[in-house]
Amino acid sequence: MDATSKPASQPYGPQRQIEIYLGGLAGRKPLLPIALDKLEQRAREVLTPEAFDYIAGGAGGEDTMRANRDAFRRWRIVPRMLRDVARRDLTVELFGRRWPAPVMLGPVGVQGIIHPEAEVAVARAAAGLNIPFALSTVSSKSIEEVAAASGDTTRWFQLYPSKDPELTASMVRRAEQAGYSAIVVTLDTTMLAWRERDLDYPFLPFLNSQGLANYMTDPVFRSRLAVTPEQNPAAAVQQWVAIYSNPSFDWEQFRAVRRQTRLPLLLKGILHPEDARLARKWAADGIIVSNHGGRQVDGAIAALDALPAVVKAVEGSIPVLFDSGIRRGADALKALALGARAVLLARPYLWGLAAGGEQGVREVALNFLADFDLTLALSGYASCREVDGSLLTPA
Amino acid sequence: MDATSKPASQPYGPQRQIEIYLGGLAGRKPLLPIALDKLEQRAREVLTPEAFDYIAGGAGGEDTMRANRDAFRRWRIVPRMLRDVARRDLTVELFGRRWPAPVMLGPVGVQGIIHPEAEVAVARAAAGLNIPFALSTVSSKSIEEVAAASGDTTRWFQLYPSKDPELTASMVRRAEQAGYSAIVVTLDTTMLAWRERDLDYPFLPFLNSQGLANYMTDPVFRSRLAVTPEQNPAAAVQQWVAIYSNPSFDWEQFRAVRRQTRLPLLLKGILHPEDARLARKWAADGIIVSNHGGRQVDGAIAALDALPAVVKAVEGSIPVLFDSGIRRGADALKALALGARAVLLARPYLWGLAAGGEQGVREVALNFLADFDLTLALSGYASCREVDGSLLTPA
Amino acid sequence: MDATSKPASQPYGPQRQIEIYLGGLAGRKPLLPIALDKLEQRAREVLTPEAFDYIAGGAGGEDTMRANRDAFRRWRIVPRMLRDVARRDLTVELFGRRWPAPVMLGPVGVQGIIHPEAEVAVARAAAGLNIPFALSTVSSKSIEEVAAASGDTTRWFQLYPSKDPELTASMVRRAEQAGYSAIVVTLDTTMLAWRERDLDYPFLPFLNSQGLANYMTDPVFRSRLAVTPEQNPAAAVQQWVAIYSNPSFDWEQFRAVRRQTRLPLLLKGILHPEDARLARKWAADGIIVSNHGGRQVDGAIAALDALPAVVKAVEGSIPVLFDSGIRRGADALKALALGARAVLLARPYLWGLAAGGEQGVREVALNFLADFDLTLALSGYASCREVDGSLLTPA
Amino acid sequence: MDATSKPASQPYGPQRQIEIYLGGLAGRKPLLPIALDKLEQRAREVLTPEAFDYIAGGAGGEDTMRANRDAFRRWRIVPRMLRDVARRDLTVELFGRRWPAPVMLGPVGVQGIIHPEAEVAVARAAAGLNIPFALSTVSSKSIEEVAAASGDTTRWFQLYPSKDPELTASMVRRAEQAGYSAIVVTLDTTMLAWRERDLDYPFLPFLNSQGLANYMTDPVFRSRLAVTPEQNPAAAVQQWVAIYSNPSFDWEQFRAVRRQTRLPLLLKGILHPEDARLARKWAADGIIVSNHGGRQVDGAIAALDALPAVVKAVEGSIPVLFDSGIRRGADALKALALGARAVLLARPYLWGLAAGGEQGVREVALNFLADFDLTLALSGYASCREVDGSLLTPA
Repeated sequence: MDATSKPASQPYGPQRQIEIYLGGLAGRKPLLPIALDKLEQRAREVLTPEAFDYIAGGAGGEDTMRANRDAFRRWRIVPRMLRDVARRDLTVELFGRRWPAPVMLGPVGVQGIIHPEAEVAVARAAAGLNIPFALSTVSSKSIEEVAAASGDTTRWFQLYPSKDPELTASMVRRAEQAGYSAIVVTLDTTMLAWRERDLDYPFLPFLNSQGLANYMTDPVFRSRLAVTPEQNPAAAVQQWVAIYSNPSFDWEQFRAVRRQTRLPLLLKGILHPEDARLARKWAADGIIVSNHGGRQVDGAIAALDALPAVVKAVEGSIPVLFDSGIRRGADALKALALGARAVLLARPYLWGLAAGGEQGVREVALNFLADFDLTLALSGYASCREVDGSLLTPA
Repeated sequence: MDATSKPASQPYGPQRQIEIYLGGLAGRKPLLPIALDKLEQRAREVLTPEAFDYIAGGAGGEDTMRANRDAFRRWRIVPRMLRDVARRDLTVELFGRRWPAPVMLGPVGVQGIIHPEAEVAVARAAAGLNIPFALSTVSSKSIEEVAAASGDTTRWFQLYPSKDPELTASMVRRAEQAGYSAIVVTLDTTMLAWRERDLDYPFLPFLNSQGLANYMTDPVFRSRLAVTPEQNPAAAVQQWVAIYSNPSFDWEQFRAVRRQTRLPLLLKGILHPEDARLARKWAADGIIVSNHGGRQVDGAIAALDALPAVVKAVEGSIPVLFDSGIRRGADALKALALGARAVLLARPYLWGLAAGGEQGVREVALNFLADFDLTLALSGYASCREVDGSLLTPA
Repeated sequence: MDATSKPASQPYGPQRQIEIYLGGLAGRKPLLPIALDKLEQRAREVLTPEAFDYIAGGAGGEDTMRANRDAFRRWRIVPRMLRDVARRDLTVELFGRRWPAPVMLGPVGVQGIIHPEAEVAVARAAAGLNIPFALSTVSSKSIEEVAAASGDTTRWFQLYPSKDPELTASMVRRAEQAGYSAIVVTLDTTMLAWRERDLDYPFLPFLNSQGLANYMTDPVFRSRLAVTPEQNPAAAVQQWVAIYSNPSFDWEQFRAVRRQTRLPLLLKGILHPEDARLARKWAADGIIVSNHGGRQVDGAIAALDALPAVVKAVEGSIPVLFDSGIRRGADALKALALGARAVLLARPYLWGLAAGGEQGVREVALNFLADFDLTLALSGYASCREVDGSLLTPA
Repeated sequence: MDATSKPASQPYGPQRQIEIYLGGLAGRKPLLPIALDKLEQRAREVLTPEAFDYIAGGAGGEDTMRANRDAFRRWRIVPRMLRDVARRDLTVELFGRRWPAPVMLGPVGVQGIIHPEAEVAVARAAAGLNIPFALSTVSSKSIEEVAAASGDTTRWFQLYPSKDPELTASMVRRAEQAGYSAIVVTLDTTMLAWRERDLDYPFLPFLNSQGLANYMTDPVFRSRLAVTPEQNPAAAVQQWVAIYSNPSFDWEQFRAVRRQTRLPLLLKGILHPEDARLARKWAADGIIVSNHGGRQVDGAIAALDALPAVVKAVEGSIPVLFDSGIRRGADALKALALGARAVLLARPYLWGLAAGGEQGVREVALNFLADFDLTLALSGYASCREVDGSLLTPA
């Protein structure tokens, strides 16, 4: 039995660590590298250049992608000593459910270009650790397939509002029926950004029917087609191009989604505090501060730099989550200290998926949790709930 | 028919993008790389080292050239969400003419060292997209040749005031007659800067009669010569060296130009707010904030850093344009947010010219416009006119 | 006789220098490179990759390790001129003992992976120069062996409080009996951090019984084992894993240590001024500001950035020492100017140990002292006691 | 005739430039590269590694050497337009003599390791351009030899005060008699710094009798020796080691020098404003702000960062000159804008000396002057005297 294959129990930190070191004595190693630069290199080796760059790249000159990482370096943790941190509580509560740690595997589309098991492998890895997972609208596996792989673990559905409101409604309905417990409405991708790496191949996987599982299985979407996608895939893609994104989507249109479901609705992509105030006004249940990992507006503010003002604007009324640039435990801890309730991990678990499928995702998540747990404890905190801005000082 | 050869219609963004991705499905790619680092590399491969460095280089240690780019990174866009941006209006009005986008192909001399069709290829590409183009005094094609290639598209003439005021007057007159609709008086090159790359070859193309088309065809210039340039090119160059630049050019001498023409006169190279105030006082019609792409005063302020004070100084009385460091859509958007009415693109279109002639310039312009359109829209703005300083936050 | 083998007398600076230069005339060179980058490279060549990385690495992405060095660059010395600095006094007094210079060889565990003579070689080198040395709990040589090698030179014992308080008490007792004159209680390693380099081998030397000399020779530790470590080393290691670190260690538990010994107790790892105030309250005798060389909390504040607030918090009541990032004389001088009474050197002397054993440590220490002496003098100071914040200006 | 061999007349800028470009047409190039990185590379190729590193290196980790350059990048020139700069006046007056430009070739010792003609070649090049030159105490050519090569061009003598005050007095006397018009007392080198590059060879040229020309020819120095240096060079070097530097040198000892001569006395190495005030009090005639090119106190403030406070402290009572980091015209212009009356050039002319002897120094000086002239003019200034802080803005 592999040293890393036992279900992890709380706290993740020392256990994972000792498993790895003891495994080494017994001549066993984890499947994947621990160091993130090596892990990314491994992913580069196993993926096609197109797929690797699709994950790795950002919009334009990738300035915002770099800024996302730089922003973390401008906040420094000031650890506290001589506090009893032997027993840690990493849990957080969101929308009535308790998460084992303030970490979710974030929504990323078209994972079929990374691994044949795609989002199903991710969902299984998440379920194995009881870590929440968010499924993308443009996934390679359908809402229902992923639900079946998720067991009881928290799953959210990320929604790209379509030009066709009935299709949007259908997707939300399916997510509800399949046991997804919240809807994440992504706001920052009403159009696809100018991504130089992808354009240079050119590579847009959706045009090859990849990442359209939720459309191809959707009754509304299918009803719009003259013949089935199985009969004429190209026409289905054509239809997808026509309705995929909705640059008219505004607060009024959001109201329609709001009215349709009683699930919590989170708005993903909020960066301006005024939009955070509007989110409250229009009855959103949560916000995810994000710049889409630097993939949409090149030149945009680093997501972490946008977090404090958004947190301040909502005044604690609704939870604020965070993504864009999270790589290690200290990143998550800094985001929490700046007011995030939880963070979404993305590129690192995709590297794990690329290089090791379900087991790869599992290892990446375990490593991340171990690092987070240790960083929290060594900073002098035994619980995520104790963490606030006093943990940090500007660099 | 090539996927990129159709005239673009507004908005440029998604159209250009989908053309490229769909072209890829059909096995077609644009002529040139999209990513700017690859495009520059392509230009390097096709040009002589002297020509490449002439474009690429700056004054002295090229510190200002780097500072120009760094300045953009210190301003960050804060995108707004949930705004209807389905229909965008990129147009701006300048001197009674409506431009399709706040972008001009800026004046760059001696393009014959880059491509045999030189400024004529650029003018044709500009005309094909209805993008304004500014012709340099020291162009490889004459005022009249370029006018003939420009059709109805807005063309401006960039003027280096000569030591010979009658020659200056003659050039302005020819530009008027050839339908140029504004004169850009460049102020920052009354002498050529100390450019180490060029000096090390040494390479100054004008001394080989390159870039002197407007002189060789000018009646006043020719009248100063004992024999025609065709008979004695070296003597013509000698004369050019004697009168080319005018380090005495001051506000009084500017008044003479002012009196000569009713065309709008823009002053290019203003960096100090006091000079902006003087520009108003001496009846200039516009300002182009620029440090000549870092090619004149090494150690000079980054052009973008100079923009806000200049904008403030003119108090909206005359339009302020911007160049020096514009590479991508976000750069243009930032300049607009800081008060520029439009921006001038330079090095990127020269790379396009080098690597692809007219089609190369066309692709670079299309890519730039697409990127700009998408960045504007994804930032939550449907019109250039809505953009102001509230779009930005300091890094 | 080698030019460098004579005991150095005060001041170290010009003597060491002239020895090297005159040695060069006679065709002799020091055993090791002087330049630290070359020295580190030499260490890399002679060590196993695991051992080199164990020394070189930090926690997580090694961001704090880099920040430690960057922090020094943000303070600049403003030298004073025309002061008589012919005779310098580098001495400092700590706990009733006069040190020849404000420099100690800091505690680093498991030096047996670097050199077979390990801490004994270091202790001999320290004794040869009368430079204080601190022995780690997890050393490769025992408290008593190192004491025997140290002669009269000041030696301190660094304590990792165990989960087994009787073991902790035994270690302190042994240190007292062996003539160690102070106890350094390390606070920041109640758990081992997530160190990607080590995890990737995986390499944790303690699991191979390395670095456990003080445990294997300890009567309390041995009494906990069913059979002797010699009979069953694996079981001893198992026991070590169980009791090594104590994440419950808090101020109350510190009180037990405090009550046990009359030796000065220093708290190592304090970074927050509030913890410095608590240190006074709970009767610590000194503080060592440190982030463990960036090896524990990645993302933590640079140690030098934490120093001024800690110094301010203790108001001179107890001495504050410093480590984490000290490489050269100017680093030590800056730390002193910011309020440190002395600094602890670590990685550089380990490179010396790796590449040259005792002689290597000796050379590194001599070089460091020479550099410090010269930097002090050339800054216009003849005594460490004169140094204060007026020496520095922010960059 | 070589294009660069004509004596330059004022203004240097366009002339030098056009000579190079026209020379290129005729197939002639300057002897040396113009670009400083290429010039330094050329020097590296022709020098021994020891000699190259002796010039290139700094103290310790060379942090201050880098800081010197970085400091220039934090000040940006804001050029003014539309000013008549056709006729420039680069001259400055110092101690009753008019310099053709605010630039001196600074004192650097032991140039015999760079070129056999050493300081004599430099003096000839300086004289050919009428540029002032300062001779080092530890030169490879004597006070009198260099005077003979200098003609009427301003020459200063740089003094390292000796432990032997009569020797100091003798050197000053010889300088007076040989027509040196000022004495530069270097304060920052009462001991040689810890220079890792030199120590690693080890290489200290003086120990091989290099750079001791002024000592070997000095009657006082010779009188201290039992036998002549020619008979026993090693004993002479020994004596030099004993008396070369004087770490006791303080204001009282400076008074003795002050009393000895009526020549202007400049203090070189002042970085603290309080020392600048003391310089006035003790009747110094000028100050040279310098950190010895980063060769003495590693970690010291960048020289340019020290300049404004020193200028402010002297309140215009005595001239302040500047060195440490000057590479190009813009550097000189920035130093002038911050209050320096003139700057001293060092490493660049040494590269010229290495690669081209007298002609190399000449070219470097011409290039520097051309760059300075053009940068001044293109910034909108026709005279050095007009330059003040309003030229600059912080980056």
